[in-house]
Amino acid sequence: MSAIDDLTGELARLPGIGRKTALRLTYHLLKQPKEQSRRLADALRTLSDKVRACSRCFNLTEEELCVICRDPRRDPALICVVEEAADIGAIERAGEYRGHFHVLGGRLSPLDGVTPDDLTIPQLVSRVERTESGVREVILATNPSLEGEATALYVQRQLATFPLSVTRIARGLPVGGDLEYADGVTIAQALSARRAM
Amino acid sequence: MSAIDDLTGELARLPGIGRKTALRLTYHLLKQPKEQSRRLADALRTLSDKVRACSRCFNLTEEELCVICRDPRRDPALICVVEEAADIGAIERAGEYRGHFHVLGGRLSPLDGVTPDDLTIPQLVSRVERTESGVREVILATNPSLEGEATALYVQRQLATFPLSVTRIARGLPVGGDLEYADGVTIAQALSARRAM
Repeated sequence: MSAIDDLTGELARLPGIGRKTALRLTYHLLKQPKEQSRRLADALRTLSDKVRACSRCFNLTEEELCVICRDPRRDPALICVVEEAADIGAIERAGEYRGHFHVLGGRLSPLDGVTPDDLTIPQLVSRVERTESGVREVILATNPSLEGEATALYVQRQLATFPLSVTRIARGLPVGGDLEYADGVTIAQALSARRAM
Repeated sequence: MSAIDDLTGELARLPGIGRKTALRLTYHLLKQPKEQSRRLADALRTLSDKVRACSRCFNLTEEELCVICRDPRRDPALICVVEEAADIGAIERAGEYRGHFHVLGGRLSPLDGVTPDDLTIPQLVSRVERTESGVREVILATNPSLEGEATALYVQRQLATFPLSVTRIARGLPVGGDLEYADGVTIAQALSARRAM
């Protein structure tokens, strides 16, 4: 039954899907109308054929420029730097941000062999450099992890010579969180970044 | 970005995969070589095109008869009745059983509208009926659930007039289980089915 083994093997390569879950999914698909497997197969093909990186901000898109870079109502003088294209979705869902983005494609991680040249940091610098861009502020929204902080620091240094403000997203207690269960580092950050009410 | 939405939507139709997991899988695939999405798409297509039910036992197969029905070393006089084709894998992994199988395709469930005619019970009866089959024993290995028990009881009645023994898999404490955490029904079953040592 190699067709079943093939699909199970391919599904098990996905993150968070083990051998048993893969087998369960395969049997599930076998019980559904054939149309469902077909549609999933077609969606996979379309994805790998059509989706590419935006030539300006490296967000995912099916066109030359992504839907955000093409939107005339968004402010191009504001660039929010994120690690992955998926992070854009998280920020967009918050519904507060009206500027543009820049996707680094990862974070600096010397142990994993990820150096500045593996990320789109040079492209960010040349994007800011172009005088017509008129970038006013770059918001560093890399993750609040060790690598994310190091990446933010590195990007900040690359942009230090330009006449613009470089900011970092705030760290603190998550809204709805509980002081009792927060870790010490977060509490320390929340205290040192306290603001007058 | 409809290609991303399409794939996310299709993945989210799978059991145990919600919207967020589907999105994470989609982004994961976008970061992998295109080859991986292609292979997954091909495996899905092959599955829906090639896999069908064994004409004798309704196990999944790519041929007329499944790999178990074709195996001359297995005993055709012994039929193990299971609810789903996936259950065959579980029994085969135990490595103890050397007979044939019969896949019912579900369990009796009047509330969900599943009647005996929706299962392969008539096919099981005519399989036993054929004198050349020489079936000696039918083992009912439906799940130890309410519906599984009802299904086993129904099948047993259908086969009552044939000169063969109809048995039910044993229920009791799982090997490696803990009496302290076992439910009362299981303990009651384990007690009433106790055997001399």
